[in-house]
Amino acid sequence: MTNMDFGSPLTGLLHRYTAVRNHTEALVAPLSAEDCGAQSMPDASPAKWHLAHTTWFFETFVLEPHEPMFAPFNPAFRVLFNSYYNGVGARHPRPQRGLLTRPPLAEVQAYRADVDQRIARLMPAVLQSDTLRALVELGLQHEQQHQELLLTDIKHLLWCNPIFPAYGDATTPVGDPAITPATAPPGWVRLGGGLVDIGHGGTGFAFDNESPRHRCYLAPYALASRLVTCGEWLAFVQAGGYQQPAHWLAEGWDWRVAQGLEHPLYWHRPVGDGLWQVFTLAGLQPLQAALPVLHLSYYEADAYARWAGARLPTEAEWEHAAQPAPTGSPGLEQLFGTAWQWTQSSYAAYPGFHPAEGAVGEYNGKFMVNQYVLRGSSCATPPGHARSTYRNFFPATARWQYSGLRLARDA
Amino acid sequence: MTNMDFGSPLTGLLHRYTAVRNHTEALVAPLSAEDCGAQSMPDASPAKWHLAHTTWFFETFVLEPHEPMFAPFNPAFRVLFNSYYNGVGARHPRPQRGLLTRPPLAEVQAYRADVDQRIARLMPAVLQSDTLRALVELGLQHEQQHQELLLTDIKHLLWCNPIFPAYGDATTPVGDPAITPATAPPGWVRLGGGLVDIGHGGTGFAFDNESPRHRCYLAPYALASRLVTCGEWLAFVQAGGYQQPAHWLAEGWDWRVAQGLEHPLYWHRPVGDGLWQVFTLAGLQPLQAALPVLHLSYYEADAYARWAGARLPTEAEWEHAAQPAPTGSPGLEQLFGTAWQWTQSSYAAYPGFHPAEGAVGEYNGKFMVNQYVLRGSSCATPPGHARSTYRNFFPATARWQYSGLRLARDA
Amino acid sequence: MTNMDFGSPLTGLLHRYTAVRNHTEALVAPLSAEDCGAQSMPDASPAKWHLAHTTWFFETFVLEPHEPMFAPFNPAFRVLFNSYYNGVGARHPRPQRGLLTRPPLAEVQAYRADVDQRIARLMPAVLQSDTLRALVELGLQHEQQHQELLLTDIKHLLWCNPIFPAYGDATTPVGDPAITPATAPPGWVRLGGGLVDIGHGGTGFAFDNESPRHRCYLAPYALASRLVTCGEWLAFVQAGGYQQPAHWLAEGWDWRVAQGLEHPLYWHRPVGDGLWQVFTLAGLQPLQAALPVLHLSYYEADAYARWAGARLPTEAEWEHAAQPAPTGSPGLEQLFGTAWQWTQSSYAAYPGFHPAEGAVGEYNGKFMVNQYVLRGSSCATPPGHARSTYRNFFPATARWQYSGLRLARDA
Amino acid sequence: MTNMDFGSPLTGLLHRYTAVRNHTEALVAPLSAEDCGAQSMPDASPAKWHLAHTTWFFETFVLEPHEPMFAPFNPAFRVLFNSYYNGVGARHPRPQRGLLTRPPLAEVQAYRADVDQRIARLMPAVLQSDTLRALVELGLQHEQQHQELLLTDIKHLLWCNPIFPAYGDATTPVGDPAITPATAPPGWVRLGGGLVDIGHGGTGFAFDNESPRHRCYLAPYALASRLVTCGEWLAFVQAGGYQQPAHWLAEGWDWRVAQGLEHPLYWHRPVGDGLWQVFTLAGLQPLQAALPVLHLSYYEADAYARWAGARLPTEAEWEHAAQPAPTGSPGLEQLFGTAWQWTQSSYAAYPGFHPAEGAVGEYNGKFMVNQYVLRGSSCATPPGHARSTYRNFFPATARWQYSGLRLARDA
Repeated sequence: MTNMDFGSPLTGLLHRYTAVRNHTEALVAPLSAEDCGAQSMPDASPAKWHLAHTTWFFETFVLEPHEPMFAPFNPAFRVLFNSYYNGVGARHPRPQRGLLTRPPLAEVQAYRADVDQRIARLMPAVLQSDTLRALVELGLQHEQQHQELLLTDIKHLLWCNPIFPAYGDATTPVGDPAITPATAPPGWVRLGGGLVDIGHGGTGFAFDNESPRHRCYLAPYALASRLVTCGEWLAFVQAGGYQQPAHWLAEGWDWRVAQGLEHPLYWHRPVGDGLWQVFTLAGLQPLQAALPVLHLSYYEADAYARWAGARLPTEAEWEHAAQPAPTGSPGLEQLFGTAWQWTQSSYAAYPGFHPAEGAVGEYNGKFMVNQYVLRGSSCATPPGHARSTYRNFFPATARWQYSGLRLARDA
Repeated sequence: MTNMDFGSPLTGLLHRYTAVRNHTEALVAPLSAEDCGAQSMPDASPAKWHLAHTTWFFETFVLEPHEPMFAPFNPAFRVLFNSYYNGVGARHPRPQRGLLTRPPLAEVQAYRADVDQRIARLMPAVLQSDTLRALVELGLQHEQQHQELLLTDIKHLLWCNPIFPAYGDATTPVGDPAITPATAPPGWVRLGGGLVDIGHGGTGFAFDNESPRHRCYLAPYALASRLVTCGEWLAFVQAGGYQQPAHWLAEGWDWRVAQGLEHPLYWHRPVGDGLWQVFTLAGLQPLQAALPVLHLSYYEADAYARWAGARLPTEAEWEHAAQPAPTGSPGLEQLFGTAWQWTQSSYAAYPGFHPAEGAVGEYNGKFMVNQYVLRGSSCATPPGHARSTYRNFFPATARWQYSGLRLARDA
Repeated sequence: MTNMDFGSPLTGLLHRYTAVRNHTEALVAPLSAEDCGAQSMPDASPAKWHLAHTTWFFETFVLEPHEPMFAPFNPAFRVLFNSYYNGVGARHPRPQRGLLTRPPLAEVQAYRADVDQRIARLMPAVLQSDTLRALVELGLQHEQQHQELLLTDIKHLLWCNPIFPAYGDATTPVGDPAITPATAPPGWVRLGGGLVDIGHGGTGFAFDNESPRHRCYLAPYALASRLVTCGEWLAFVQAGGYQQPAHWLAEGWDWRVAQGLEHPLYWHRPVGDGLWQVFTLAGLQPLQAALPVLHLSYYEADAYARWAGARLPTEAEWEHAAQPAPTGSPGLEQLFGTAWQWTQSSYAAYPGFHPAEGAVGEYNGKFMVNQYVLRGSSCATPPGHARSTYRNFFPATARWQYSGLRLARDA
Repeated sequence: MTNMDFGSPLTGLLHRYTAVRNHTEALVAPLSAEDCGAQSMPDASPAKWHLAHTTWFFETFVLEPHEPMFAPFNPAFRVLFNSYYNGVGARHPRPQRGLLTRPPLAEVQAYRADVDQRIARLMPAVLQSDTLRALVELGLQHEQQHQELLLTDIKHLLWCNPIFPAYGDATTPVGDPAITPATAPPGWVRLGGGLVDIGHGGTGFAFDNESPRHRCYLAPYALASRLVTCGEWLAFVQAGGYQQPAHWLAEGWDWRVAQGLEHPLYWHRPVGDGLWQVFTLAGLQPLQAALPVLHLSYYEADAYARWAGARLPTEAEWEHAAQPAPTGSPGLEQLFGTAWQWTQSSYAAYPGFHPAEGAVGEYNGKFMVNQYVLRGSSCATPPGHARSTYRNFFPATARWQYSGLRLARDA
C-alpha cells in the first residue's frame, strides 16, 4: 500500500486508527492466552472477547456495507462476538463468554490483523464519505471504551485468584499505579448556578447520549475540590459506616447485608497484623491514605455522602462546573484521569434526544433505566477519550470500575 | 366522650380522623378473616397487616411520645407491625407477613378501636400543638396511602386464585368499575415550557418528597389529552409489540422474556373463544376498548411510547401541565382519579430536599434509587388524597398498582 | 337414609369412616379460619387444604366412578384440591395453596359434610364390592396420613410467628406433649440376622410400597433400646458437633452451612439466661433432657450417629427387629408412637413391586428417588395407623416431621 | 539416582507410575492452554486443574509425610488444588476453578515433572513399605478417575461453544468414536439369584467403598444382553416419552420441565433438514441407530425403563451377573468399555463398611447420600481401571458422564 502515503488527512486518520488499535494490543501484551480467555463474572468479558468484539464492530458496521466483495473473516464470529445488538442477529449468551476457548487467541489476533488491513485498504473511500468517517470514528471510540473495560475486567479476574497475581511487571505503564494525590488542601468550590447549557453541541466527536445541548436551571451549589480519599473512607469504616442503616438507601442497605460488604471492593485486611491493603494491577499494596478511594458502588458513595453531611452532585452540576473550571485550574482537582465520579443523576435521555438510526442506534438509548451517571474519567481511560460532556453509566451495584466520589452540597 | 363536642376545630379534626379510619374498615368489610390474612407476593401485604400497621403508626408516633402513662396495646405489635422504620427497632420479615395468623383479625380490630379511643382522648392536646397536629395529619395521609395499597394487594391476591373471585358484590362502590372513558377525541395539548416552578410550596399537607418548590427549565412539549386505552394497547399486542426487542429498554426486554409476558397484568384470554377479558375487583370482565389500560410496568409503558413514536413525560412536565390545566378543563382529561401515570423521571430528591428528623424521616428519602415517579392519582386513591405535586413511585417492574400511561412528545 | 341397614358390617364400616373423618375435624377445632388458610413453606399445606384434599380423594376416586348421577360438589375443586395426581388433570401450584382464601373454610366444611353424606348413602354398595371397599379404606388411610401432616404443618406455621403461639389450650390431647421418656436404662439389643422376610404379606391394609413381602439377608446387628434424647443431643451440640465437617456427609455439611443451622428445628435459646427451650404445640417449653430429640433431618441424624461411633439402621434391620420385638416388650422401647426413626435406606421399590393401576397408582412409586425411609410412628400418628411394615419417607433435608433417631451398629 | 536398582519390582512400579502419569498428559496434548483453563459448569473442572490436583494428591499424601526434607513445590497449591478434603485445610471454591489463570499451564506441567521426579526418587522406600505402596497405588487409581473426568469435562466445554469444535483431529484415539454396536441380536439373560456374595474380597486394588465382600439375597432376574441403543431411544422420543409424566419419577418430571429437556445431552437437531446429530469428541456426527445411547441422567434412564415395561437393575444384580458372565462371553455384551450403566441402587455403605483413617478416608464415604450407582465402565475409562466390583456414582441429574442404560426385569 505504498500509494497510501500521499497526503495528510489520510495519513492522519490511518495513524489514529493504528494508534488506537495498537493500544488495545499493548494492553493484552502482559497477558497469557489463559488470562485472555477467562471471565470472572457475567458483567465482565474475557480480554480475548474484547479484542474480537471491537474488531467485529469494524467488520460489521464499516466493512460489511462498504467493502467491495465483502466476505466475513469467519461467519461464526457474527454470533460469537456480537454483544447486544439485537438488530444484527443472534448473540452468544453473555455469561458464557469465558467458555469460548475456540477460536484461540492467535486466531483472534489474525482476525484483528485481517480487518486492520482491509480497513486500511478502504481508507481512501472513508475519507470521501462523512458517513464512513463517522462510522470509523465511532468504532475507534467504541474500542477505547473497551480498552478501559478490558483493564477493569482483568483486574477483577486477577482479584478472584487467591494468590493475587499482578497484571504485569513493575514497568507496566497503565492502571492504578498512575494515580496521584490531590495537591492542594481540600475545600469547597462554590458555583452560582442559574440557567446553564449542558450537553454536546460542538463539532468534535460525542456519543449520541451527550446530545442535544440543552438548557437547565441550577440552584447555587458547591463541589468538593478533590475526591474523597482512602484515609477519609477508612474513617467512615471505623466509625461503623457499614453497620448503620440510617446512612444508607433502603435498597443499598439490603444489598450490603446480603453481600456481607464492609469495605470497598479490592480492600483486603490479611489475618495477622490487620493492616489494610488494596489490590491493584500491581498486586496487593499497602493502603495509602492520601490517594482517592476507588471501586465504590453508588450505594456506598451515597451512604458516605449522607454520613458526611453532603450529597452526590447532579450530572448537570458536575458538567457545568467542569466547563468554567477546566482540569488543572486551581479550585477543582482530579476532574479527569483519576476516577469516574458518581452523580445522583439517573441515566436518562436528554430533552430532544434521538438515537441514531439502525443497529448502531442501539448503542446507548436502550440502557436508559436503573443506571446512574458517572462523570469525568479514570486512570484507566485511554488518552484523548475524556471530555466534560461524557456520560458514563453503571448500575448502582457496580464496583469493579474505577469509580470514586466527589462530594457536593447546596450553597 | 360527651365533653368533646365543644367547638368546631376539635370536631373537625376528630371528624376527619374518624372518616379516614372508617374508610379503611369499609374497605375490608367485604372480606373474610381468611382474605385479610393472605399475602400473594413479597411486595404486597395482607389486609390485616395494613389495618394493624396504620394503627401502629398512630400508637408509635403520636401516643407513645405524647400520651400520659402510655402503655402499648400489645408490646409484640411493635415488631409485628413495623414496616421499614429501622429507627424504631426490629421488624418481622416482609415476605412472611402472611404467616401471622395470630393475632386474629378480631384482635387487630380491637387494637384499632383502642387506639382510636385514645387518640380521641388526646385530641384536645393535639389541637394545641403544631407538632402533634402534623403527626396526626401525617398518620392520616399515611393511612390513605395504605388504603390504596390494600385494594391493589387484595386485587392481586384474588387474581392468584384460579376461580377469579370478586372482591365484593355488585354494589361494592370502590375499584376499577368506577373508571370511565375519556369524553373528547384524543389530541395533543402543547405547552410552552420555559422557566417554571414545581414542587409543594403552600401551606396544605404534602409529603417531604414534594418539597422544596424549586425552579426548572422545560423545553416546549406536548402531552396526550387522555390516557392510552385498552383498544390502543390491544393494537400494540396484535402488532407484535411484545415480540420486538427494538421497542424495549434492554433491561425491560430481558425481564419480559424471563417472565414470559405478552400483555398487561390482569389481561386474560380463556382457551376457547379467544376473547380478551380483564380481571377487576368485580371479577373477570370483557375487555372494553375505550377504557384506559391499567396495570402497566414502566418497561411496558416505555416500550409502547417508543412504538407509538412518542415518549413518557417527565414529572416536571406533568406537574407543570397539571397546574395550568386543572382537572376537567378542556384539554387534559384523566389527570386524576383514573390511573397513576408513569413518568420517565427517576425518583430522586428535589434540589434542597431535607428529610424530616427522626424515624418519620425515613419515610421517603431512603427509597430514592431505582424507582420511577408516577403522577396523578387512580380510581383507588381515596378522596382528597390527590394533588398536582404528589409523587408516587415504584420500581420499573411493578404492575399491580393502577398504573397507566399518558404519552408525551417534544413540541 | 331410612334404607340403611343396621346390620353390623355396614355399621362397622360406616362407624370407622365417621371416626376417621371426625378425627380430622377435631384436629382443626382449636384453629381459626385464618390459621387454617396459611401455608408456611412449599412443603407444607394449609389445614383447609388438607380438609378439602382428603375429601376430594373420596369424591374423585369413590363417588365419581361409582355414584349414580354423580355431579361434583364444585367443579373448581378438581383443580384446587388435586395434589400430585397427573392422571386426574391440572393442579393448583403447590407453593400457592396459602393464597386460596376462597372457598372459605365454611364452604370446605360444607364440602366435607356433603361428601360424607353421599359416601354414607353409597355404603351398601361399597359393602358388596371389594374394589369399592378397598378404595374407601385407601381413602381413610390417606386421610390419616394427612392428619399427621396437618399437625406438623400447623406446628411449623405457628413457629414462624415471632410470638410463638400455642396450637390449642392446655387440654389439647394431641401433639408432642404426649411424649414420654423411655423407662429402662439404655442399651443395645442384638439381633442375629440371617435370611429374613420383610414387607407386607398378610391380609390387612397396607400401602402398595410395603409389598411384596420378600427375602433378604442381614448380617448380625444391634439396635439401641431407645431413641436418642434431647440431653444426648445437647452434648453433641456442646461438643461442637455442628461445627466439625468430619461428622457430616459432604452434602449435609454444605446444607448445614448454607442454612446456618446449629441445632435441631424448634430448639430456641432466648437472649438472656441462655436456657434452651423447645417449641411444641403447647408453645415454648424448657428442654427436657430425658425426652427423645425430635425434628431432625437425615443429615443431622447421620452426623450424630457417626459422632457416636454408630450408624443408622437399615429399614430391613428395623422391620426385622420390630417383628420379634413387638412394642412394649423389654428390649426395644419407643418403636411406635414417639418419633419416626430415620433409616439409612433410600426409598426404593421392593423386589417385584408393581404400583396399582390408574391414578391411585401414582400414590407411592413415583416418589422413589432421593428420599430416605423412616420407620415406626410418631406421637402425631393417628391411632391404628402404625404397623411394622410401614414405610414413611422424606428428603434428607426434612425437619418439620416428628423425626428422631435410633442408633444401630454391627454386632 | 545411581542407587536405583534395576531389579523388576521397582522397575515395574515405576513403569506403571510413569505410564499412568503420561496417559494424563497425552489426554491434554490436543488442547491449548486456553482449552485447559476453562470450566463449563460447577460440576466440571478445567483440564489444568485435573493435571494439578492429581499431582497435589501425590505431593500431599505421599511426599509430604514421607519425603525427607519435604518442601512444597508452591505453598499456594495446597489451597488451589485441594478438592474436597476438609481434613487438609482450606479449598478454593469449586465453581471458580476456571478463574485460576495463574499458575499458567506451563507451571502446572513443571509441577507435574517435579513431583514425578521426587516420587521416582522415593520409589525404593515405597517398595519397602506397604503403606506407601498403597498410597502410590491409590494416587494412580485416583488419577485414572480424573482421566475420565478430564475427558467428560472437556467434552462438555466444547459442547458449550456454538461452533461445536472437535477435541482433536481425526486420529485422536480416545473418546466416543471407539464405541461399537453390539454384535448379537438383543435378548434377555436370566439369572437365578439366591444367596450371593458381592463386593471386593480379593487382594488386588479396590476403593474402600467396594468392601467388605458381603452376602445378599437376590430373587431371580433377567438383564438385557446389551445396552439400549440410539435407535431405541429415538423411538422413545418420537413416542412422546419426554412429554408424558406417567413414565417419570415425580422429581425427574419436575426437573425435565424446569430444564426444558426433550432428548439426551449432546443430541442436536439443526434447523433445516431435521436430521438428528450427536456431539462427540470428534464434533457433530450423524446419529447412528445401532450405537448405544450415552449421556443419560438417572431420571431419563428410569423413565425409559418404565416406558419399556422394564426396570433398572440393582447394583447387586449387575455385579452378580458380571461375575458368572465375564466380558465378551455370549449372553451379556457391553458390560465394560462402552458406557457406565445406571442402577436403581442408591449409593450407600456396604454392611460392615469402614472408611480409611485420616484425610484419604474422606474419599468415598462422605458422598453416600442422594447419588445413584453406575456399574461397568465406559469408552473413556482408562485401560486397566475397570472391574466387576467397581462402584461409580453420580446424582440423578448428571448427564455429562458416559452414562447409558441396560434394562432389567424380574424373571
